[in-house]
Amino acid sequence: MGVIMGNLEKMESAKLREEPVAGNGLIGRRTLLRGALFSAGIAAAGVGAAQADDSVGADAPEWMKTPGRPFSAYGTPSKWQEKVQRIFTIAPGRAGTGVSRTPLHLLEGTITPGGLHFERHHNGVPDIDPGRHELFIHGMVKRPLAFSLDALMRYPMETHIHFVECSGNSGTFSSAQPPQITAGELNGLLSCSEWTGVRLATLLAEASVAKEAKWVIAEGADAAAMSRSIPLEKCMDDAMVALYQNGEAIRPEQGFPMRLLLPGFEGNMNVKWLRRLNVTDTPVDARDETSHYTELMPSGKARQFMFLQGAKSAIIKPSFGMNMKGPGLYEISGLAWSGAGRISKVEVSADGGKTWALVALKGPVMPMALTRFRLPWHWDGRPSTVMSRVTDEAGGTQPTRASWIAQYAPGQGYHFNGIQSWGIEADGTVKNVYA
Amino acid sequence: MGVIMGNLEKMESAKLREEPVAGNGLIGRRTLLRGALFSAGIAAAGVGAAQADDSVGADAPEWMKTPGRPFSAYGTPSKWQEKVQRIFTIAPGRAGTGVSRTPLHLLEGTITPGGLHFERHHNGVPDIDPGRHELFIHGMVKRPLAFSLDALMRYPMETHIHFVECSGNSGTFSSAQPPQITAGELNGLLSCSEWTGVRLATLLAEASVAKEAKWVIAEGADAAAMSRSIPLEKCMDDAMVALYQNGEAIRPEQGFPMRLLLPGFEGNMNVKWLRRLNVTDTPVDARDETSHYTELMPSGKARQFMFLQGAKSAIIKPSFGMNMKGPGLYEISGLAWSGAGRISKVEVSADGGKTWALVALKGPVMPMALTRFRLPWHWDGRPSTVMSRVTDEAGGTQPTRASWIAQYAPGQGYHFNGIQSWGIEADGTVKNVYA
Repeated sequence: MGVIMGNLEKMESAKLREEPVAGNGLIGRRTLLRGALFSAGIAAAGVGAAQADDSVGADAPEWMKTPGRPFSAYGTPSKWQEKVQRIFTIAPGRAGTGVSRTPLHLLEGTITPGGLHFERHHNGVPDIDPGRHELFIHGMVKRPLAFSLDALMRYPMETHIHFVECSGNSGTFSSAQPPQITAGELNGLLSCSEWTGVRLATLLAEASVAKEAKWVIAEGADAAAMSRSIPLEKCMDDAMVALYQNGEAIRPEQGFPMRLLLPGFEGNMNVKWLRRLNVTDTPVDARDETSHYTELMPSGKARQFMFLQGAKSAIIKPSFGMNMKGPGLYEISGLAWSGAGRISKVEVSADGGKTWALVALKGPVMPMALTRFRLPWHWDGRPSTVMSRVTDEAGGTQPTRASWIAQYAPGQGYHFNGIQSWGIEADGTVKNVYA
Repeated sequence: MGVIMGNLEKMESAKLREEPVAGNGLIGRRTLLRGALFSAGIAAAGVGAAQADDSVGADAPEWMKTPGRPFSAYGTPSKWQEKVQRIFTIAPGRAGTGVSRTPLHLLEGTITPGGLHFERHHNGVPDIDPGRHELFIHGMVKRPLAFSLDALMRYPMETHIHFVECSGNSGTFSSAQPPQITAGELNGLLSCSEWTGVRLATLLAEASVAKEAKWVIAEGADAAAMSRSIPLEKCMDDAMVALYQNGEAIRPEQGFPMRLLLPGFEGNMNVKWLRRLNVTDTPVDARDETSHYTELMPSGKARQFMFLQGAKSAIIKPSFGMNMKGPGLYEISGLAWSGAGRISKVEVSADGGKTWALVALKGPVMPMALTRFRLPWHWDGRPSTVMSRVTDEAGGTQPTRASWIAQYAPGQGYHFNGIQSWGIEADGTVKNVYA
């Protein structure tokens, strides 16, 4: 097949009437449906004459000429994808305390594959024998209970798609200069999975919680015995003891054989390797709700128990490391989420916040799940600043970075949900900017 | 912590008023919300007195006493899950032609993890260099085009959750005796993923399809050059060139670096390793639409081009291999799907089809996606037959197995969507029965 190289940069958008939806080149999705605008395909001469039965001729690639590899019991990604890994600050395999991030800039859609879910461990990943693991419910209950995994498997289950976000996610936005790192490095303490498990309210009802109870102290079976105080109200609402993640048994790094899932609450409270639920009338002031995961205020005092992850969004395409290939049509794409429920509105600006385009969200928008948004953009080649902002169904919005920063003492980095901006330079370079 | 063994079989349902929704013990989900019915937890004496700071005492499991393992670049399932594998008829690694099945009976929820998606290969899994792979659109088009992966990445994308089902799935139900095999062996040529890619209509519009064109011959870059004729109407509707599966690059076994995705159409037409789209005015009568994937009729003639997967459901819990542990409360859970759109109704019977309970579906029901259904069942310990049936939004329903069989010549096994039944014997054994 002879292929004539075309001109990748020759965009045909001028031939079509574009529908601007905001300043600096943002256009409506309906424009796309009316014609071919992107023209990134290369004109292929001679292909038209090829017959279907010529397909394995001399020009066919070598992988069509020999049988492929056999079936496998449990598949893995292509070897060509070996750079698509979780992101570490120190080399993997060197430590069990810290974080790894989801490489959001290398992924698409909304589901995070199990192998790339972010990690936050306080003393490594325990190797728990599921046949010996037990979940205890005790404290202010009439009937203390112990559940084996087999016992839990018998209970009615629920399935929901929810994000989990570390409250330290995007904390580097509190630094004075905009860090020039990828969207995954900036925002990758964020993942989204389909979770299946038993509603915690069902188990607590069986244990019969005392009227005076107000908190549940959740503890993991890791070597840190990581503990958090959870309001009883959340435990009786949509909290789940999750046993499955994206259809299969929950992964070791996410709490095998079971974890607490508190939709919309900061990641750390979703206690992994869940072992004990101690029903109490006061919080326990655990290490991770005193020394960590609090918000340092300008007064020098720390604010505690700010559980909910705020309304938030980030443009992933384009982002740092993906340089633009000349003027023309691009798709701006990103993620929106909120701990308070469904995303009700996503807006995108290509002129640094002067004008905003309302994005039409496609497909079901699920509560406390990642929502992917997309908008076509005709970049004219001049320096531009793109940004996104969201509103959730509870009315929550994203503040500007400056107004978010002003609430706290310098360096406070928990619960950042300010508006993020990418600056596009004339040569196509994409940089993190504080706009 | 001292634990007194309780009586796992002592169900407390008698204490609560159950709401029957059909005969032989099917009860409403709302009953569950009114109290603790399952009582599979074991009464734990002494747990109530334990303090949170006692958690890593002498009784703590050994995995709480030593640091856990470090972070990993790309995670894998727990070693305790090593039996959760795709199901082969011959040993894995022995052949590249045939099928492997998703172990549905070991999974939950609706998403299939990438490593367990079913496989159907016609000459193995090709090792395609994504930097050298091209997608050609040619034939009856004004402008033949070639797309590199980089070029496609620039186009606007869409994200949808869809099942893919081989039309040979569940074909063993055509055998005279009910096969005593697991739900995965019976129905596991069925998987569901979140797919992200470029709408095929966008690419075809760019190539400018001739008015007389009616078909598109899709060809894979595997060593079988697997080809199918696709109606142009489907290609201009919801067809997608999928690049991502569950958030990451599509897996090699599902077509890396790109596959055709035709929501609701039989799996074989969703051509993997997509290399050519030849626009024509007639179908090509490819090997896999003549020697395979046709329906043999009683007349001896074969019916061709029955593309749509019908309305279908299967109870997964209980199923063969999961024996009931005495009378008491259980959750019946299963999967429902249809190639024609959304599932509009799921019904379950526990008395062999005499009475049916309408199941309340929770969460968003998506078109051409797996839908998980659940219903509580109070099994009284007597022999029972459980079955499910669905209706889709297009009005499609599941026939009885007998009426499905009667349509075809003996042994025809494509597109089986008859009602499936599990017989529960008095000792709790679960068997596949033709009811």
